[in-house]
Formats: sequence, structure tokens, C-alpha cells
Amino acid sequence: MEEEQVIRTDLCSSGKEKPQADQLEFGRIFTDHMFLMDFTDDKGWHDPRIVPYEPLSIDPSAMVFHYGQSVFEGMKAYRTPDEDAQLFRPQRNFKRMNHSNSRLCIPPIDEAFALKALKQLIGLEKDWIPEAEGTSLYIRPFIISTEPYLGVSPSSHYKFIIILSPVGAYYKEGINPVKIAVEHEYVRTVKGGTGEAKTGGNYAASLKAQELAEDGIAQVLWLDGVDRKYIEEVGSMNVFFKIDGKVVTPALNGSILEGVTRNSVIQLLKYWNVPVEERRLSLEEVVTAHKDGKLEEAFGAGTAAVISPISQLVRGDKHLEINQGKTGTIAKRLYDTLTGIQYGKIQDPFDWIEKVEDVQQETLKASS
Amino acid sequence: MEEEQVIRTDLCSSGKEKPQADQLEFGRIFTDHMFLMDFTDDKGWHDPRIVPYEPLSIDPSAMVFHYGQSVFEGMKAYRTPDEDAQLFRPQRNFKRMNHSNSRLCIPPIDEAFALKALKQLIGLEKDWIPEAEGTSLYIRPFIISTEPYLGVSPSSHYKFIIILSPVGAYYKEGINPVKIAVEHEYVRTVKGGTGEAKTGGNYAASLKAQELAEDGIAQVLWLDGVDRKYIEEVGSMNVFFKIDGKVVTPALNGSILEGVTRNSVIQLLKYWNVPVEERRLSLEEVVTAHKDGKLEEAFGAGTAAVISPISQLVRGDKHLEINQGKTGTIAKRLYDTLTGIQYGKIQDPFDWIEKVEDVQQETLKASS
Repeated sequence: MEEEQVIRTDLCSSGKEKPQADQLEFGRIFTDHMFLMDFTDDKGWHDPRIVPYEPLSIDPSAMVFHYGQSVFEGMKAYRTPDEDAQLFRPQRNFKRMNHSNSRLCIPPIDEAFALKALKQLIGLEKDWIPEAEGTSLYIRPFIISTEPYLGVSPSSHYKFIIILSPVGAYYKEGINPVKIAVEHEYVRTVKGGTGEAKTGGNYAASLKAQELAEDGIAQVLWLDGVDRKYIEEVGSMNVFFKIDGKVVTPALNGSILEGVTRNSVIQLLKYWNVPVEERRLSLEEVVTAHKDGKLEEAFGAGTAAVISPISQLVRGDKHLEINQGKTGTIAKRLYDTLTGIQYGKIQDPFDWIEKVEDVQQETLKASS
Repeated sequence: MEEEQVIRTDLCSSGKEKPQADQLEFGRIFTDHMFLMDFTDDKGWHDPRIVPYEPLSIDPSAMVFHYGQSVFEGMKAYRTPDEDAQLFRPQRNFKRMNHSNSRLCIPPIDEAFALKALKQLIGLEKDWIPEAEGTSLYIRPFIISTEPYLGVSPSSHYKFIIILSPVGAYYKEGINPVKIAVEHEYVRTVKGGTGEAKTGGNYAASLKAQELAEDGIAQVLWLDGVDRKYIEEVGSMNVFFKIDGKVVTPALNGSILEGVTRNSVIQLLKYWNVPVEERRLSLEEVVTAHKDGKLEEAFGAGTAAVISPISQLVRGDKHLEINQGKTGTIAKRLYDTLTGIQYGKIQDPFDWIEKVEDVQQETLKASS
């Protein structure tokens, strides 16, 4: 039904100035336009539109402010050497958004229509995709509950919004080993909770551990909330350990987010015939492997940093150095291959890339 | 410092029509004015003001929409037989708000100043406190993170807001036994998580279990997230069981919210010399007590319903009827005493009541 909806457009009269590539931070500057769509119980998802980026007018009693009923996604648009714009596996993000929606009692979106809307928005904002090495246009689709009602129940009103932000390389050096600390006091989530969903509450819960972490710690390593001994995620990324020739990552257990980069890493490793295991992995196993000289590499995987090698695992006053603090062979190969595919510099054998066609502002004006 | 801040006022030219007492629902109608205050890293909490109730203008990238960094409180203003307005233990709510703030990395508020601001707002909106039996003016203080930034870190901008909503009796009959179901699949939170804090994510996580509960189930009974056998809370209330003459409630363990009504119930029971225990309580112990004929009463305690007797505990296909489905003696006595004190109908031996002085709109206009 939503496939047939027309995306209304209301364009800016003049655009904002675009930032210099070397001044790009993460997520502080937004493009000229955004996509919006509303949900009400009687109309379903309706009124899809591309409008100037501007503040939202929301009632103080809107549920999102009180009961956190919200979901989001994160992906990127990349500029190729041919000046084309392209996306990396965007279907998986919208599919995961619906998985999150289900857990949060938010009505599902039409995934194909969402992708169509995103491509139209990116096509319109293509000039905002920065050109420099490692830069991209970060894409943030999100849904918030807007019913003006203080009862604890699923909202009857929502807004689905997509905003865009030109971002710099996550690490200036491209790929840079970081120190992570094992978190023993706080937990991110637990089986039966919302860990599998990309929802605000998981991130709100994670702030305290990061705040308390010592200087120089880039991320914390989350342990499971039940036994407090199995590895779950690192910061807001999935995590991989290369132990005695095999790459091991925690299996999806109900409290770990299924990362698109995680899935891509596993596929690449299999394609390369590198042994990879998704299973329960205790911190103790990693510590023992380190002691026995069998912990060869460790790295995080996520949309923002792509691959983030781990130089040290900090556990109380013990610092376990991994691979002499350097980026490992597998991490480097994964980073180069993933970014190569994402930026259209190497062949994509997996059909991961989704091209975005240019949209002329004049065309939109004529059709709207 | 904040004590000396002047609360700026900008009053409505004409007020909204007030609802009929018999049409009052919970949390759908809001009064003419609200309190707001801003936080920025450089200025701290500043610009306290009472302004007309109206939509907030918030950037789509504001952190609250993405990472759920928010806290809230719930309390009520009551109208006494002498037409005075009064609050019930509001200091505890603002203290708990700061406890929540600490967990969520939100800068603390000045509790005394918040109470002063609340009293000024209530004094101004006193005509909105409904008169009918069991009705009150629900108070919702909340803090949201508003920095326009997509990085996962504590926000540098916040808004502290208080809105007011005239509400009807939670149950038309005043006190009404409800059926609750034991939740086995989903968990609300876990030790090390955010369960002790009153933050949106806990409520977002709770929606699914309630949605899946069978018809006629008013609330779900949450078990702990680790062993899945110890009782935590019921719905969004604390829970009490009278077993063999003793009233037992789960001890505060890091994942249970410390309810103001919970604390008041415990104080009242001690005052009455009724044995009361705060300790770990397994579901099995309750089921065994029921089998042995020793489960005398069960009830929830919270600001909205005050005391909510439990008529049946549903566990899979088993229905355990409690006290023949009727309101128990202790639940009734607690309800009558708490509401009696709250509405100023009986003496308050605990100094729980905080009187609110009338505020004349003319006075505010002159001072602003």
C-alpha cells in the first residue's frame, strides 16, 4: 500500500554552506533536507515527504520523552571514484529496524518504500557526500513515539525520520588500534531485555560505564548480564577475537545487536576460507589464550569505525597487550576490503552495493 | 547558586476550558502552563521560567530521540476539604530524580529549587486540581537531553520540564483487585542496568510483555533477569505479599525502583506494628504459601493507583486466586490511610505533607 504513496517535496530556497572535508566531525552537521512520515492508528504510515531540515514541534507529553519508545538505524552513503553515490546493504538496516520495531511495539515500516525514500533523499543531497578519503554521508533513520499521553502503553502516533550528516574518517589514520576495558559493574542489557533492538535505552544505559572508564580507554567490553563472564559487545560494536588461527565472535543470544558489519565480516572470512565461529565466548577463554600466546588479534566491527583493532584489554589493573599493540593482518584485510567495496574501489562479489541515482531539484519541484 | 535564580513568568492571556470531573482520564489533558529550565555545559542550569503549555521546538538530532538519555518523576497535587492544595513527599521525588540523573550521566538539579518552582507552578494552576473523590493533579517532572549531536556520549544540553495533568481516580471504584500474570520471557532490567533509575528505556522495555498478556491481565509480574525466579516489581509498581501474618516485599537490589509509595507503606506497617520484611522473595515461595493456605494478601503500591490489590496470580494456565479475589484488610487500611493523608482528611503523623500556597497571576505579572 505504501509503495504507491507519493513522496511530497518542499525544498529549501537556498542551501547551507558545506563544511571543509578536514573539519568534519561525527554527527554535528546536517544537510539541507530530511525525510519525514507520520503514523496514526487510523491512517497507518502516511504523508511521506522531503522537507527542509528544521526543528520538530513536539508536545511536551509526547511519549518518546517519557517512556523511550524509539528505534534507530545507522548507515552511510559513499562517493565512488566515478562520483556516483552508493549505499552498503541498506536493506539489512531497514529489516533490522522492523525487528527493533517489533520488540518496541512500534508498527512496522514498508522496507522497500523506506529504501526508495532514502535513495530519493540521498539523490537530492548528493553534493553533501564529502570527497576526501574515509569521509562519507552518515544516514540516521529513526522512529519516535509522539502521542501526547502519559499512560505507559504503546503510542498511537509516530514519526519516521531520516536525517543525513557528512562525517569525517572515524580515525584520522584510517584504522587505529584502541584500548578497551572490561566492564564488571554495569551491564548493557540482558536476555529478555532489549539488547537485540537498536533502541535508545540500550545506549542510555551504556553511558555511565564509558564515563567512569579511565583516560585512554576508547570503549568498554560488555559482559553478559546473567553470569557476568561471557563476552557480548565492545562499546556499540560487535567484537571478534582471533584465537589459535580461528576467528571467534559471540553468537547472537538475544542480548547482542546483529550488526551489518558483523555479518559482512563473517561472510568475508568464510569467502577467504578463514575459520570463523559464532559461539559463546568467555572472558576467561580470551585471557587464557593471551597467556598461552594464542590470542592473535582482537577487533570491533561497526558502521562508524568499520573495523577497530584492539591494542589492549584492560581488566582492573592488568593490561593485556594484543598483537604488540598493532593492527592485525585479518583486521587490516577486512578494513581494506570492506571500505574498498563501500567506496566502489574494488569489485563487490556479494551484491552488497546499492547504487543511488541523482535526483534533480527541478524534477522534484515539477512533480510536487 | 540556583536558589537565587528568579523564575521568569510568561502567562497565557486566556486559559483552556477545564474538563468535567467525570470525564477525567489519566494523562491526556494538560494545564495552561508548564515550568522549564535549560542546562548547557557553560551556564549550568539556567533560565527557570513558567510559560504557556505549548509544543517544544527540538532539533531532529537531539540526543533524547536517539540515545534515550532522559529521566522522569511522577507525583500528585491533592485538593483538601478546606480547598487547599498539597503535595505528598515531593522531596523524595526530586531526590530520586537526582539518583536517576546520576545513573544516566545527567547533571544534578537543585532539589530545593525544583520544589520551589513546582510549588509556584501548582499555586498558579491550583484551579486545575479537580474536586471529585479520588481525582488529583498529576505532576510530571522530566529531563531530556537536547544536544544536536549523534555521538554516543552524555549530552551537553538538557531541558528540565514540569507539566501538570488533572486525572481521575485510577479505578472508578477507588480500590479494585486486579489480575496479574507472571512474565517468563521478557525482563524489565537487571542488576548493573538502569532498573533503579526512572528512565524511559525501562518502560520501553516493558511494553512488549504487557502487549502479549492475555485479556483481563492488568499488569505483569517481573522476575529478576539473572535467575528468573525472584520477584521484582508488578507492572510499574512495587509489590507486597502478606504471607503467614508477615508482609514481605522484595529488597532493593539494584534493579528495583525505590517507590515513594513503597517506602510509605513500609513506614505505615511499622507504625502499626505489622511485621514487614524487605528481602529476596522467590516466586516459588509465594506459590508454596498459596498452596499451604498462607498467602493472605498481595498488592501493588505506586503513585498512580496508590494501592492495587491482586486478585489472581496467573502463571501459564494456572490461576492462583488470592484472598477469594477480594481486597484484603491490610491493602484496604493502607489505601484509606494513604489517601486520607494525601487528601488532608486525616492527620499526618509523618510530616509527609507539603502545603502549597496560592499564587495570584497578578503577583507574577508584577514580579516578572
